[in-house]
Amino acid sequence: MSEVQQKGKLAKAASYQLNGVTTEEKNQALQYIAEQLIQDKEVILKENQKDLQEGENNGISKAILDRIMLDDTRIEAMHDAIFQLIDLNDPIGEVLESLEKDNGLRVERKRVPIGVIGMIYEARPNVTIDAATLSLKTGNAVILRGSSSAKYSNQALVASIHQALAKSKLPVDAVQLIEDTSRETAQQLFTLNEYLDVLIPRGGKKLIQSVLQSSTVPVIETGAGNCHIFIDASAEKKLAMKLVLNAKLQRPSVCNAIESLLIHKDWFKEHGLALLKTLAENQVAIYGDENVCAVFSKAKQATEEDWYTEYLDLAISVKLVSSCEEAVNHINKYGTRHSEAIITTDHANAVYFQQHVDAAAVYHNASTRFTDGFEFGYGAEIGISTQKLHARGPMGLPALTSSKFYIYGQGQIRE
Amino acid sequence: MSEVQQKGKLAKAASYQLNGVTTEEKNQALQYIAEQLIQDKEVILKENQKDLQEGENNGISKAILDRIMLDDTRIEAMHDAIFQLIDLNDPIGEVLESLEKDNGLRVERKRVPIGVIGMIYEARPNVTIDAATLSLKTGNAVILRGSSSAKYSNQALVASIHQALAKSKLPVDAVQLIEDTSRETAQQLFTLNEYLDVLIPRGGKKLIQSVLQSSTVPVIETGAGNCHIFIDASAEKKLAMKLVLNAKLQRPSVCNAIESLLIHKDWFKEHGLALLKTLAENQVAIYGDENVCAVFSKAKQATEEDWYTEYLDLAISVKLVSSCEEAVNHINKYGTRHSEAIITTDHANAVYFQQHVDAAAVYHNASTRFTDGFEFGYGAEIGISTQKLHARGPMGLPALTSSKFYIYGQGQIRE
Repeated sequence: MSEVQQKGKLAKAASYQLNGVTTEEKNQALQYIAEQLIQDKEVILKENQKDLQEGENNGISKAILDRIMLDDTRIEAMHDAIFQLIDLNDPIGEVLESLEKDNGLRVERKRVPIGVIGMIYEARPNVTIDAATLSLKTGNAVILRGSSSAKYSNQALVASIHQALAKSKLPVDAVQLIEDTSRETAQQLFTLNEYLDVLIPRGGKKLIQSVLQSSTVPVIETGAGNCHIFIDASAEKKLAMKLVLNAKLQRPSVCNAIESLLIHKDWFKEHGLALLKTLAENQVAIYGDENVCAVFSKAKQATEEDWYTEYLDLAISVKLVSSCEEAVNHINKYGTRHSEAIITTDHANAVYFQQHVDAAAVYHNASTRFTDGFEFGYGAEIGISTQKLHARGPMGLPALTSSKFYIYGQGQIRE
Repeated sequence: MSEVQQKGKLAKAASYQLNGVTTEEKNQALQYIAEQLIQDKEVILKENQKDLQEGENNGISKAILDRIMLDDTRIEAMHDAIFQLIDLNDPIGEVLESLEKDNGLRVERKRVPIGVIGMIYEARPNVTIDAATLSLKTGNAVILRGSSSAKYSNQALVASIHQALAKSKLPVDAVQLIEDTSRETAQQLFTLNEYLDVLIPRGGKKLIQSVLQSSTVPVIETGAGNCHIFIDASAEKKLAMKLVLNAKLQRPSVCNAIESLLIHKDWFKEHGLALLKTLAENQVAIYGDENVCAVFSKAKQATEEDWYTEYLDLAISVKLVSSCEEAVNHINKYGTRHSEAIITTDHANAVYFQQHVDAAAVYHNASTRFTDGFEFGYGAEIGISTQKLHARGPMGLPALTSSKFYIYGQGQIRE
């Protein structure tokens, strides 16, 4: 039996046990994990150093090394996040619908755990802790498959989790780490339908596409954000400038930053150059359509590919449009269904835009940077879904649950 | 461009238009469809005759011919079902969550259509009408791919739908029928990710397995029901007899009928033979474990395969168990996550069973035959989901919706 099969089987058995644990038992286990992380800090940091050393030897980029890096502050942040998680309501057991039938039959739809959650992710060891603790809070077992670039860190973190779980009422097997980080183990997870109820990939476009293409286990697609702001003809200049600069500059490397700007030609005539100049002054490379390039010499001509591109960097594509409808059609063609905004004082256009743009989050007169589980009040986040089934947008604890009909009878039969 | 590609593209464009229609416009269109079906009844019945004739020539079984068959009563039932659907609440636009942040930002999660729904189904032409009308009520476009055995009927029904839609405010392209019923068009739908948001197969195990294995479009798994009743030691004899007979005999060919009986050995000692005799008197073939076969000569020895089998017929597998826990473990191993029941007067066992059995619907002291969208109060049903993501159990109108975050701002940026 392969490592993936073996750990899958253990996780499934643990998930059945988790159906019987109480909120208090889960929170107690989470507290033990938080405390164990602090206790094991030195070991964890030592193991993390090994990953960083290997990464440097392998020529991994500074940006990725920074994602792998752990220090006192980051481990304390993990600890604190777990205590925040403990304070969140336990969604399990919540009655979502209920019905009393004429024949006395009572039907209740209740929230239950999903079962076994598979996470495939890159670099960031904090995902190990996030995924494990959010899964446990919702009564799920989890199978973690991190990347080889963080393997020592992940092993140390999961060792701490196991030590904490051993003291708790929760089964130690509820958290499984796949130690073999070869491509084969990822492939094996894609078809582990017997033991896995859902697979959540977190990482780059390539990883996500490969999971979507090859997985027979249900997948929740997360992440990619080719986000737009549409500046309508009636947009106030100051407001538009402020929102565009925030959405592009505040943190260009994240998925809810904007990558593309659609500007109504009438607005552009009056304020376009000022906006483009400010962007350029902030080191933003501009890829414009022909109208933009004709009046702003620093802009490079955008290719068809640019409209699809998530730069995740100081770069933006800019296109002029003649109507709100044209903007919506462009977004529905090139967008990734993440976060999209309109800036306008025209109520009808705002309504049309928010109703017709096909995305998880549609904004009127605000920066797209708010799309996130904490900002939307979930107090936790396992990722941002860009698909439409099960969960859409920031996924908090309820996204890690399913439901079950409980039917209470006194001998009712169907006539 | 293939037929599937072409119709996919048209459906997607129609789905964008459907984001702007009102409840009244949708209900008006549904009414036109209901009326058109009555108006076109003779044409539809004539086309249905062609399917029946071809089916007979091809040696299709009587049971399946009955599923294909339409008559006055069945068309009137379609008409009436549409008027019931009109009366149901429109779920679209419902505010599911809302939040006002300190900075004045208002975040609302609202129900929206999924987009384009693909239905792959066998025989039954009534699924054509059900799928089309439920999709329209929830603002979705739909691509229908029925089986060749009902192709004339399906074409006639969709012709009526198109005629009705042409009179309405809804786009005619919202309902697409794939006329080429070759295996290739099914395969093409499996990977039509560009235009299709979800694929719902309705039919036999083989169809569903092939969709699950090959589809890169998200799938909602429906249907298979290897359902159990567990008779606990403390079950009342009369109650147990009544529920088992109802769940097995009332309609053996449906997915919520039971296929397997688990009996606590203490109960069996006192009442087992009486129950088995009654089942046998009702022409039910019994496949028993060795304990059952040892005392009831009419029982045949069950094979390992029997515990997995959904007979959909007058047959049942019977196994003795020593505890509630053993029953739960058996169900979680062999069941299909559909409907499972315990008969007991022991409260703790009922709680344990309902909490630990992994199924869409878990019953205490009632027949499993109630698992269905109408019985559970949805007023409509597109299928019964046996998976855990998005929808579980009977799927009413809400199962055909997604959600979207609407964010209303006055210039808020992220600091």
